[in-house]
Amino acid sequence: MAQNTVGKTSVTLLGLGAMGTALARTWLAAGHPLTVWNRTPARSAPLAAEGAVVAGSAAAAVAANTLVVVCLMDDASVEETLSGADLTGKDVVNLTTGTPGEARARAAWAGGRGARYLDGGIMAVPPMIGTPGSGGYVFYSGSRELFERHRETLAVPAGTTWAGEDAGGAALHDVALLSAMYGMFAGAAHAFALIRKSDVDPAAFAPHLADWLGAMAPSVHQTAAQLRSGDYTRDVVSNLAMQVAGTPTFLRTAEEQGVSPELLTPYFALMRRRLAEGSGEEDLTGVIDLLAR
Amino acid sequence: MAQNTVGKTSVTLLGLGAMGTALARTWLAAGHPLTVWNRTPARSAPLAAEGAVVAGSAAAAVAANTLVVVCLMDDASVEETLSGADLTGKDVVNLTTGTPGEARARAAWAGGRGARYLDGGIMAVPPMIGTPGSGGYVFYSGSRELFERHRETLAVPAGTTWAGEDAGGAALHDVALLSAMYGMFAGAAHAFALIRKSDVDPAAFAPHLADWLGAMAPSVHQTAAQLRSGDYTRDVVSNLAMQVAGTPTFLRTAEEQGVSPELLTPYFALMRRRLAEGSGEEDLTGVIDLLAR
Repeated sequence: MAQNTVGKTSVTLLGLGAMGTALARTWLAAGHPLTVWNRTPARSAPLAAEGAVVAGSAAAAVAANTLVVVCLMDDASVEETLSGADLTGKDVVNLTTGTPGEARARAAWAGGRGARYLDGGIMAVPPMIGTPGSGGYVFYSGSRELFERHRETLAVPAGTTWAGEDAGGAALHDVALLSAMYGMFAGAAHAFALIRKSDVDPAAFAPHLADWLGAMAPSVHQTAAQLRSGDYTRDVVSNLAMQVAGTPTFLRTAEEQGVSPELLTPYFALMRRRLAEGSGEEDLTGVIDLLAR
Repeated sequence: MAQNTVGKTSVTLLGLGAMGTALARTWLAAGHPLTVWNRTPARSAPLAAEGAVVAGSAAAAVAANTLVVVCLMDDASVEETLSGADLTGKDVVNLTTGTPGEARARAAWAGGRGARYLDGGIMAVPPMIGTPGSGGYVFYSGSRELFERHRETLAVPAGTTWAGEDAGGAALHDVALLSAMYGMFAGAAHAFALIRKSDVDPAAFAPHLADWLGAMAPSVHQTAAQLRSGDYTRDVVSNLAMQVAGTPTFLRTAEEQGVSPELLTPYFALMRRRLAEGSGEEDLTGVIDLLAR
């Protein structure tokens, strides 16, 4: 493996979108020799000025180093980009966003071409990359050996969190957390819409909203404990029957404020369905059972 | 106003559900003389043993003290309970959950009966009452004079936060924050459903989920700043076009894991609608505009 004089692992990086460019800069800044390739060559030029070697093709970039990090648009781009390269003996770390199934299939595909494979799911936006303390990190799954071997290099742009030997684990964690975030964003959108036609200043309301969501987030620990035990009545504070009884107030308030309830009604509908199954003494956890097809 | 020897304000409390009972206990524990009434008398007995005076009727309870706190099932119960009482000169603090419109109408109704009126929206579950540091608090709106006069007494069970002279302000804040919370719960339910058929332990996953939601909650400050300025492209990190492009991964992952996407699709649909209006460079904030009818 090529290393520079101070022992920093050389890295090949395929893909220089906003995220790839952020990754590239942190490795360059940390003294890692870096070879880059991007489909649109114009994005490589600024990095060349910062010390990166710009490869003329993806295959040449892959040939340059053992550690090959891939950060492309989607899984189809990964296959297209790597299909002309010799992956024999390579350590492929795929940070491209995709599904768990795509990650597993890509791991098998890479293994069939003689590569070790580690999949990554990035829990950060580009400005958080290379910023310790920003809360950004990357889930990794697949080859534990590869993870341990390159952990120090991978930790340069963002924290590293192991998500299991199943190559799909990182994508599963990534998509699950981001899905939950969109749910929270949907709830926040409804809340802001409610205050829109009042004289409440959004900037005065936001601290209440941030604090409340932050205070309620740890309730997922109780949900997890209930899922594990299978007993959804455990430690219930406000049971499903009470919470369903409260939903008309939310819908009437939306109506009073001229706000469409479309972001709330699907969850309320599942709460009612679960209640109709005779689960009034339970927590809200039973809704999760209804989502599984 | 009746006060005991150490100058603690006497309180009348109507309604002894889980929340009312928790409120009653904290006032008793803090040495406030307390008169209680509940439609179902059995709930009063334990409190009588702890020192509360049990009134034989709502009217008698109201007659006992100037400060009358109401914590009933809904607004209709408030009207029914108070309609037989003489409210002249009373300080009515209504903690019953309702809509902003109901609070405004109840304030006018109480005013017409000679009472001052303060509305409250409780941001806590009963176990958080009387537990400083639990994060629980109550929004108050309506008569600022009444709020200031009784603030010390009202602060015994939970923190007090002013929500404006509009009597509907407390309910609006309350419903908006709880609506946002249900959105977050919906997102978390989807996330737990996704990992359900994997070998990921919910209890190992929950810390990631709690941390991620906690880290993303402060993004509402940026949303508020964008709403205030009207410029939804301000400080955008991942624009709407990019985020919409990412949604198929979420839907395909749900399909792979056998999870219904019904809790995610309404928000994604609004994101696509906003994008179709030519707002690809914006943040997600434009979704809020689409919710207002």
